[in-house]
Amino acid sequence: MTEASSPVSDRTRLRRYHWLGKYDRQTIYDIIDAGIICQIGYIFDGKPYVTPTSHWRIDDYVYWHGSSASRMLKTQQTGIPVCFTVTHLDGIVFARAAMNHNVQFRSVMAFGNAEFVEEDKKREALAAFTDKLAPGLWDYARPPNEQEWLATKVIRLRLDEASAKVNDLFAGDEEEDLASDRWSGAVPLYVAQRDVIPDPKLAANIAMPDFARLFRYTKK
Amino acid sequence: MTEASSPVSDRTRLRRYHWLGKYDRQTIYDIIDAGIICQIGYIFDGKPYVTPTSHWRIDDYVYWHGSSASRMLKTQQTGIPVCFTVTHLDGIVFARAAMNHNVQFRSVMAFGNAEFVEEDKKREALAAFTDKLAPGLWDYARPPNEQEWLATKVIRLRLDEASAKVNDLFAGDEEEDLASDRWSGAVPLYVAQRDVIPDPKLAANIAMPDFARLFRYTKK
Repeated sequence: MTEASSPVSDRTRLRRYHWLGKYDRQTIYDIIDAGIICQIGYIFDGKPYVTPTSHWRIDDYVYWHGSSASRMLKTQQTGIPVCFTVTHLDGIVFARAAMNHNVQFRSVMAFGNAEFVEEDKKREALAAFTDKLAPGLWDYARPPNEQEWLATKVIRLRLDEASAKVNDLFAGDEEEDLASDRWSGAVPLYVAQRDVIPDPKLAANIAMPDFARLFRYTKK
Repeated sequence: MTEASSPVSDRTRLRRYHWLGKYDRQTIYDIIDAGIICQIGYIFDGKPYVTPTSHWRIDDYVYWHGSSASRMLKTQQTGIPVCFTVTHLDGIVFARAAMNHNVQFRSVMAFGNAEFVEEDKKREALAAFTDKLAPGLWDYARPPNEQEWLATKVIRLRLDEASAKVNDLFAGDEEEDLASDRWSGAVPLYVAQRDVIPDPKLAANIAMPDFARLFRYTKK
């Protein structure tokens, strides 16, 4: 399954700019794995909600977590339909024609029913989350005590109905605009990181561990 | 109204981590204006959808646009409830305790009914969009012809029910963890830009205009 293409459903088939649509698993995985913040859409009391939260992926599932008391997670754990999205802004395209300015981006959208992650899979899921963020982080930190453990809930979504959309193009200007003397181009954008800042409350003589020293937001 | 605080509704009042909630207009405006990509949540056929799209703000409204043939916009222009969100990832916080790792971020969430922007306000709205992106861009580009004009639709949402959430804190570790020999700190993240890339189809001898040369993703 992991190397196959995602089946194209009525919801995942791109209607607008369909030539930007990608349905292969690797493209979908790479876009999901390149970010740590997703947006989860769901319905509560008949109204739409979108919640930004951290996500991670294990095989063909995306995961997110939060407080056991969270209304969002209490609602989602009943198995309601959700829409999972990740978006990376890669650049701004200035076109020759006013209606052709655009952005370069990579995004994934996935639909399905949320699943509550049961106790026997929860530790493995949370360890995978922290170790994807920074290898070694799970073993380094003080493990959760019982109260913290019970206060945290994990939810997941199977990537059955998923699609990606990638725009890395320059402006789609018409021939007559290409022949004009107007300029066009793109400004590439990316997520950069600054030097690590030790916690101001850090006791003296505690060395920065490798997971922090070697941390790179962009893994490849 | 612009200097006042946003009224706190049942939907905008932060339930979890309520101390991160901000309800003053300027904080909400600054977070919206610092980005160009938002996520719009809405309901179609009883299911939740989240669509990433470009946004801009004029006074107390956020705007987005798209193809007149777009199913999303056709659905939204009927005045359905939407959830508008913007999220900026500002850093990753490594804590001493496994359950206290966190992200630094700024986000805004707004609820309300989408409004179709009528013909008489559409040009002003689109000109404001491009000029916020890069001052002078609207006048530089070839103006829309009638076909392009009809093919574009603008939607807006009044920021009546909006809240912001800002986390710029280090780890919220407990006293006993602070006293341990475990390290903690934050990796600041930001959106950076690379040198402008002229369109490969650009004719020779067309100079880069100021709006591109001076473009800065972060306005302040």
